[in-house]
Amino acid sequence: MSEFRFEITAQDGAARTGVVHTPRGEIRTPAFMPVGTAATVKAMLPQSVRATGADILLGNTYHLMLRPGAERIARQGGLHRFMNWERPILTDSGGFQVMSLSSLRKITEEGVRFQSHIDGHAEFLSPERAMEIQRLLGSDIQMVLDECPALPAEKSALEKSLALSMRWAERSRRAFGEQPGRACFGIVQGGTHADLRQRSAHQLREIGFDGYAVGGLAVGEPQAVMFETLDATVPHLPSERPRYLMGVGKPDDIVGAVLRGIDMFDCVLPTRSGRNGQAFTWDGPLNLKNARHAEDPAPLDPECRCPACRQFSRAYLYHVVKANEIIASMLLTWHNLTFFQDLMAGLRRAITGDDTQAFAASILSRYRREGGA
Amino acid sequence: MSEFRFEITAQDGAARTGVVHTPRGEIRTPAFMPVGTAATVKAMLPQSVRATGADILLGNTYHLMLRPGAERIARQGGLHRFMNWERPILTDSGGFQVMSLSSLRKITEEGVRFQSHIDGHAEFLSPERAMEIQRLLGSDIQMVLDECPALPAEKSALEKSLALSMRWAERSRRAFGEQPGRACFGIVQGGTHADLRQRSAHQLREIGFDGYAVGGLAVGEPQAVMFETLDATVPHLPSERPRYLMGVGKPDDIVGAVLRGIDMFDCVLPTRSGRNGQAFTWDGPLNLKNARHAEDPAPLDPECRCPACRQFSRAYLYHVVKANEIIASMLLTWHNLTFFQDLMAGLRRAITGDDTQAFAASILSRYRREGGA
Repeated sequence: MSEFRFEITAQDGAARTGVVHTPRGEIRTPAFMPVGTAATVKAMLPQSVRATGADILLGNTYHLMLRPGAERIARQGGLHRFMNWERPILTDSGGFQVMSLSSLRKITEEGVRFQSHIDGHAEFLSPERAMEIQRLLGSDIQMVLDECPALPAEKSALEKSLALSMRWAERSRRAFGEQPGRACFGIVQGGTHADLRQRSAHQLREIGFDGYAVGGLAVGEPQAVMFETLDATVPHLPSERPRYLMGVGKPDDIVGAVLRGIDMFDCVLPTRSGRNGQAFTWDGPLNLKNARHAEDPAPLDPECRCPACRQFSRAYLYHVVKANEIIASMLLTWHNLTFFQDLMAGLRRAITGDDTQAFAASILSRYRREGGA
Repeated sequence: MSEFRFEITAQDGAARTGVVHTPRGEIRTPAFMPVGTAATVKAMLPQSVRATGADILLGNTYHLMLRPGAERIARQGGLHRFMNWERPILTDSGGFQVMSLSSLRKITEEGVRFQSHIDGHAEFLSPERAMEIQRLLGSDIQMVLDECPALPAEKSALEKSLALSMRWAERSRRAFGEQPGRACFGIVQGGTHADLRQRSAHQLREIGFDGYAVGGLAVGEPQAVMFETLDATVPHLPSERPRYLMGVGKPDDIVGAVLRGIDMFDCVLPTRSGRNGQAFTWDGPLNLKNARHAEDPAPLDPECRCPACRQFSRAYLYHVVKANEIIASMLLTWHNLTFFQDLMAGLRRAITGDDTQAFAASILSRYRREGGA
């Protein structure tokens, strides 16, 4: 079995492009990982996700542990085979969803007790169990369990939470053990405090991980604050390991983070927006519920290669969105994932061509974050 | 432009196989038409519908007139272009859905007034307007407007309703006029009364249509009664024209109707069942919500060529059905449409090979109408 290995092929300022080599295939970076929460990227067949250009998916430990269960998936030969995606999969540790979705949470040194949001069943997640679940799933990149404190929070509370997360990171790393060809990533926490972020980064390096994630951002803070936090954090991460900004983000967030040296991203935005009638374009998001599209025979984006743009008009998309037809979710999800993958491909080309600043400027000059109608 | 023409290539008893030639392509008969109610076969892309083997779709005049509207579709270049299905489309006249979906119906000699089930808007459908809508949609096979009486009904009421439907059939045929390459089908009514069915058939032949449908069946009567009614009706239809049994049906209904000389079918069963966790198999329908599938690594049907069977296990299908994931609707719809098309292909081969009785017997001996669990 080949090794998990990160190869940087070009750098342009802080931005870099390369390949994460895994036994299940290569991940071209900067990479966007579509979210396949419950063993499916919603409204997409796996081969269609691949056709958009995705090299890797993200799976959610929290959802999969509750339904259908990690042991059941293991008995089915693992998550890849179960969901028919043979390429790499990264799984989160469940920590974030426990905080955002479950009820009756009780956090102790040992772990977190909570109730399933599906059936109210009592559940328990510790660093050891989070890693065991990810191993049962057969995940290629496994994330440590961290505590995700609700914001805003006092610095002293963040500091205490960070200390717990760092102890959990060490236990997670130990529980991961040695899994040839698979990787374990640490997660930097510390809110928007530069000193806490740096402390977190150094503590994680002490433990030693195959990659380093930045967590706890894009949770409501202004973009400028997120970028400042990245500026204060990324230089303290080892340059030879992949860096992953969790849960990000909007296209302009991604561009700014790539400029700051981030290699990997995941976000529900393209899939969730697609199910809600929103389409991403180079000019910003477009709301297909808007009546101005009702009679427009033009494609969503004449240059896009996805089926929504190649086979249908805006008038058709408006109709199926308004009529709540499943094909609306299918087409707009496909389009949005294509858009995000094309953005990543453009960034990779620009970095290789030493043209990153100009490319980023051209994207950002045109892109309106709040979108048209 | 080529003509609309029906060619019978083989007969075996009352069953026949052939080709309906249209300018938009050939329809192999016996044919099953997937239902594309609101300009989409729910949960399917058009190329996927084609991949199942469908030669023709059905569109619903009632739904399309309400949303997005026939004139709007005409301005978009017609229904084929709008929904990206360039092969033949048959449209119903809206009569059946007015009866089953709308409220505050008032039927007069002129037509039917009703309220839209979407927004309560007042609408009117006459034979002339039903044909105008179908012409605006660009439908290849257009159906006359008929009255669909609620059953059970007194024979005298059915007789009165039939007389109105026959006057509407004549007005519909006149409104259709001459549309080269397109066809207008009449609809035989008369409940389960052989004499009314025969009267209806003869009156329609007097008017003269390109094809003849049998309406008002599969509305709750036992299968034996439906077959008796077909036995009493089909011999009175011209043998050289296609015969279409509307809204049918279950696989064993289709087999029995083909044996009785029916050429065309449509039904929401494969698509609607697919969205409800039900899969058709040669042994009968299968309910994928049943916990016995939860750990079953076997495919739904090892011999089926659809993605649900080739790429996933029953355990996976159980999981996505239980989790209400869109991919469950996508995969089970694809499977069910494949099943129905494979059934039709088998019937066509059997008729060509003079083997229809044996083929039908082998299908029916195995197929359990109410299905397993």
